Amino acid sequence: MISYDNHLQRRLSALKGQYGDTAAYEELMAAGDPVVYEVYEMLRPEAAGELRSGLSVVHPGRVGEEFYMTKGHFHSIIDTAEVYYGVQGRGVLLMEDSGGEWAAEEVEPSRAVYVPPGWAHRSINIGNSEDLVTFFVYRADAGHDYGTIERQGFRKIVLREGQGYRVADNPHHAQH
Amino acid sequence: MISYDNHLQRRLSALKGQYGDTAAYEELMAAGDPVVYEVYEMLRPEAAGELRSGLSVVHPGRVGEEFYMTKGHFHSIIDTAEVYYGVQGRGVLLMEDSGGEWAAEEVEPSRAVYVPPGWAHRSINIGNSEDLVTFFVYRADAGHDYGTIERQGFRKIVLREGQGYRVADNPHHAQH
Repeated sequence: MISYDNHLQRRLSALKGQYGDTAAYEELMAAGDPVVYEVYEMLRPEAAGELRSGLSVVHPGRVGEEFYMTKGHFHSIIDTAEVYYGVQGRGVLLMEDSGGEWAAEEVEPSRAVYVPPGWAHRSINIGNSEDLVTFFVYRADAGHDYGTIERQGFRKIVLREGQGYRVADNPHHAQH
Repeated sequence: MISYDNHLQRRLSALKGQYGDTAAYEELMAAGDPVVYEVYEMLRPEAAGELRSGLSVVHPGRVGEEFYMTKGHFHSIIDTAEVYYGVQGRGVLLMEDSGGEWAAEEVEPSRAVYVPPGWAHRSINIGNSEDLVTFFVYRADAGHDYGTIERQGFRKIVLREGQGYRVADNPHHAQH
């Protein structure tokens, strides 16, 4: 494990409105609002020459047929990139820009995924039993805009299919 | 292995003047100028919002009692940081700033090392038989200043000691 300065735990309640199966969501909430993901950050001054890095750990699980995932965000300084390096488990990095483009890149140990400047991104654990662990790096002054995704969701969702997954349109996306 | 756009191989001749044991250096050169390290880069536009990342592979070996290592560099935009994440093998990240400060941080799998803005850095493989593999990330416009280190060397050197290593003053450093 890396040395870290800050540990965040995000429970299911932080993803309110992001899952299509509201009955499954309410059932999990009633059972205790489980921890969906955790972030271990190495903090640095929020300057353009500094980098923030750390580990993201998305636990295995589903809400209905949709996998556990992060809230997802744009950067506040929108034209700043992010890099993810797979450490453990299997996942999908779901990305979209504000012009309608989207991408779903698989992440696994020793594989790097690049989030270009201007793209929102969300990590999704597509495994059955293992944590999805990624090492992330972005410019330390980039900041997070969670609000846009909280309001409109992502254009796409990732659903279980057999032992794998499929990407589908998000019927609850603000523009669908 | 990551997908990469560019593959660099650096032979011992690229480290001319950096090793104290010139007889050992010349002997290795006569035996064929071995490849000391390799870099696999994911290229991106050289913009402040982009990141360059990739794998650095320092092979195991020594020149006299000094280990195989990278050339080492400052960034051309000097106040830009870099992050290393250990993938395989054991190494030391040797760092120094232009004011006389230095640091030697161990790197090993799943450990992250931060190079603060303004610090020159060099990766050194302290293992006997295994490659030192690290995943690196820095701002894509940072650039490389190799010349300063080529001229003056690092203040410190890393030498074999028993099965481990020790850090010593560099007797050939321009300011010693």
